Parts: sequence; C-alpha cells; structure tokens
Amino acid sequence: MIINGRKIADTIYGDLKIEIKKLGKKPTLGAILVGDNAASATYIKQKQKWADFVGINFILKKFPESISEADLLKEIHDFNDDRNVDGFIVQLPLPKHIRSKKIIGAISPLKDVDGFHPENQGKVMIGDTSWFVPCTPAGIMRIFEKLNVDLSGKNVVVIGRSNIVGKPIANLLINAWATVTVCNSKTKKIDAFTRKADVVVSAAGSPGLIKLSDINVNTLVIDVWFTIVDGKTYWDTDFNNMNLWGVMVTPVPGWVGPLTVAMLMKNTVTACSRK
Amino acid sequence: MIINGRKIADTIYGDLKIEIKKLGKKPTLGAILVGDNAASATYIKQKQKWADFVGINFILKKFPESISEADLLKEIHDFNDDRNVDGFIVQLPLPKHIRSKKIIGAISPLKDVDGFHPENQGKVMIGDTSWFVPCTPAGIMRIFEKLNVDLSGKNVVVIGRSNIVGKPIANLLINAWATVTVCNSKTKKIDAFTRKADVVVSAAGSPGLIKLSDINVNTLVIDVWFTIVDGKTYWDTDFNNMNLWGVMVTPVPGWVGPLTVAMLMKNTVTACSRK
Repeated sequence: MIINGRKIADTIYGDLKIEIKKLGKKPTLGAILVGDNAASATYIKQKQKWADFVGINFILKKFPESISEADLLKEIHDFNDDRNVDGFIVQLPLPKHIRSKKIIGAISPLKDVDGFHPENQGKVMIGDTSWFVPCTPAGIMRIFEKLNVDLSGKNVVVIGRSNIVGKPIANLLINAWATVTVCNSKTKKIDAFTRKADVVVSAAGSPGLIKLSDINVNTLVIDVWFTIVDGKTYWDTDFNNMNLWGVMVTPVPGWVGPLTVAMLMKNTVTACSRK
Repeated sequence: MIINGRKIADTIYGDLKIEIKKLGKKPTLGAILVGDNAASATYIKQKQKWADFVGINFILKKFPESISEADLLKEIHDFNDDRNVDGFIVQLPLPKHIRSKKIIGAISPLKDVDGFHPENQGKVMIGDTSWFVPCTPAGIMRIFEKLNVDLSGKNVVVIGRSNIVGKPIANLLINAWATVTVCNSKTKKIDAFTRKADVVVSAAGSPGLIKLSDINVNTLVIDVWFTIVDGKTYWDTDFNNMNLWGVMVTPVPGWVGPLTVAMLMKNTVTACSRK
C-alpha cells in the first residue's frame, strides 16, 4: 500500500478554502529567494502555485547570491513590519556568507510560517502546537492522523537529526507518547532499531539506506527524503521492493512533499486568523 | 563507582567565582515562590545558599497560594523590567489555578535562567547552547564532559519525557550525535532498550523502575529522579545493587541535584555578562 500525500494534501486545501472564506480576507504569504539554486526555484514555484490555488496572495522577493547579510536582515525586518503580510518564509539553503541561524532568528515568531524560529521550535518541543509546526513534520503527523495510527506506546525510529525534519518530528512523536529512537549517520546498526520498529520515519538523504530486510512486514515506513544523483532520484528506502511486500511507504506518487506545501498554506491561514 | 555530583558542582563554583571577579560586579538572581510547598521551600533555600556562597545577590519574592495569575504576571513583568535583576526563576510547581505555560512564556528569554521559555528550549533543540540550557540537563551534560564520555554513536536511553529534564536532555544528546531513545510510561518493554544502552538517563520518578538485570555491566546509569514515600526516598534505579556491580550511578551522596543548582548559578553569571 502506498500512502498518497497528494490526496491528503487535497483534503487540507479543501478545508483551507472554507477557512479562508470564513476569514473574509485573502491571507498573504511572503517569500524570500536568494540566488539561483534550481531546486529552491522549483520549491518556490510549487508554493506559489498552491498559494494561488487555495486563495493566498503570494509576494516573492528575489535577491542575487551576492546580497549581504545586513541587507537581507533589512528585508526580513520589512516583512516583519509589513501589516499586509501575514507570514513569510526564507527559502533555504542560503549562500555561505549568510548565517542562516541569524536570519531565521530575525523572523518575527508571529510570522514564521515555516516554524523554524527557536521560539516556535521550542513550542513544538514543549507540546504547544497551536502556532507554527515546521511543515514537513506537521505533514507527517497528518499522515498518522489520516491512517488512524495511535502512536502511544509505539516504537518509532526517526532517521536523521535535522532542525527541519528529524528533531521536530521526534519531539512531536515523543509528545504523542511514542517511544522514539533518533538515529543518525554515526549510529552503528540502524537495522537493529528499524527491525523492532512499528513506524520508521526516514529523513536521512542516504540512497538505499533501508533495505527490505531491515524492517518487518507491518512496519509503517515514511520515506521523507530523496537524493538526486546524475538526474536520477534515489530514496532512503528500497521503495519498490517494500511496496511489493505491502509495507506502506510514501514516495512518488504522492510523497510527503505536497503535504509540506499544504501545511505551509495552513500555517499562513493560521497567521492571518491570529492577527 | 559513584559519580559525585557534589564534587563536580564544586569545580563549577570555583570557575564561577573567577568569572564573577572578572565581571567586576555581583550578579543578581531573582526567585518567585508561590505557596507553602515544603519541597519548593527546600529547593529555594538551597539556591539561596549557593548563590550566597558563589557571590550572587539573591532576591526572593514570596506570595501566598491565593495569588491570582494576573498578579503573578505583574510580578514577572516587574522582574523583566528591573535593570538590577540579571535573571530570575519561578519555582515550580505553581498552584492549579495558575497556568504554568503562561507564566513561563511571560519571562523575558534574556532573563530566563531556568531555560524553560520556549525560545530557550528551541535554541537547545536546534543546537544553540550559548544562552540558557535547562539546569538539570546541563548538569547531566557536565557529567559526561567530566567523565570524558564521547557520546557520538553511543546508544543512550532517556526515561521520561518532561519539559524540564527528559526532552531537553534528549535533544542535547541528539545534537551530540548519540543515538537516543526516549522511553515513557507507555513504553512496553523498557528493559529491551536499557539492556542495549551504553548510557541510561532515568528521570521517571518511578521507584525501582530499573533493576540490575535490566542493564549491562558497563552501562553508565544516571539516576536523576527520586520519589519520597512515607518520608523514605526511592530512586528509579536499584541503586545499591548497581553500585556493588560497579555500574556508575549518581544518587546520594553527590546526586545530580547539586549540579542543577550550580548550573542555575552559571546561567545567572551568563545573564549578567551578556547584559
């Protein structure tokens, strides 16, 4: 069985359209894009497309790779102060001469619809999800909800410890009373953990890391991350074989990606309704 | 072998005295105590004692159990605005009619020397420990440092998922490249995890939860929490037997407690030096 993230995203958009109608005003999402990273440009296009679809204004500000940190901070402050902007994102990664932590920390927590500001991450950690949960982890939690997975007492293995996926999803799962193991590239035997897991969330970006023999038949596997090598896309899991075995995974079609975008739109509507 | 938290705390106080001399001014720590909880009064007394010892002014504000949330918030704002106060704490637990999250969220993150404000928790989670790490987790990390434990690739089991100990220590360990499993009261077989652990941090408050047979000879066990029943103190671990076996644990004498207080003083000195 394949979980179709695209379909779950559609139900979220359906709900959001109703919510926006109730609000009586079009929410506005800002986005800052620095440089010419092709993947970043694609992600921004997706966000613009779905903002249009659901009825959210999208304001894109593009800057050359050479923009200084100080000038970028000024742009952040402008978005913070702009009453017409409900929430905004800074598309990552940023050029090396700009400190991402400094930039993310400068975003007003009340407009931080990516949920990357420390205050929003901390709220997620202590169990307050009423503001902005980072979008990919929020999307993964939505999958559990849709599948009626009761996480309490379940063994969940998270592979990867990024601030964007691994750690926030781990904290959300801990708060949901799961027993959570967070593995990383230094973990000696990841399969010793995955074999005993009820759920595996893989966000490692390590092609073929998890083989069919590393998991049980009934394990729910959520493959979050892919790697592109020579134009070909590779997933963390041996996805085609797992699918044959009946294990539930989420790569194409209908990967976690559409859910990430949908949760960004949800956060934007939340920002607008809170204002 | 028993780890003596008291001795490690003494070295921290030695360093702090030098730092305070360098600062050229006495840092000031505020504390708010509500009601007549005997344990809370004892904790406050300890904090006062060690503040005096190391050369930190200690301002205690005591309020009756009946204080309203609004009045308590006013006191928080007073401490936030008081230029003479470098940092302050609100001794937990608070009476039931007061929302702890609301109170903790009202403390200025720049004066939150307990490290419980979401912004400080979030910083810990994303790997920025330059501000205020919650004191007990910071004390536990100091133990690893003193023992020269390289956490990278180690299997660490954390028992308990509180915002004060379990989750912040789990995030600190994840950031130190450990493979971290967080167990809780819904975990079906905790011993299946502890038996494979290099390190166990138990902060469950469940007397005798971990037996000698649940761990390996070389496992480093850190017993953070105790429970008092009929005036007798019980620890999470079968501490006396473990000690005989040569496993390292930390209960009396020289438990994690002294380290918690020492790290509070360290955070206060940080607050003062950052101002």
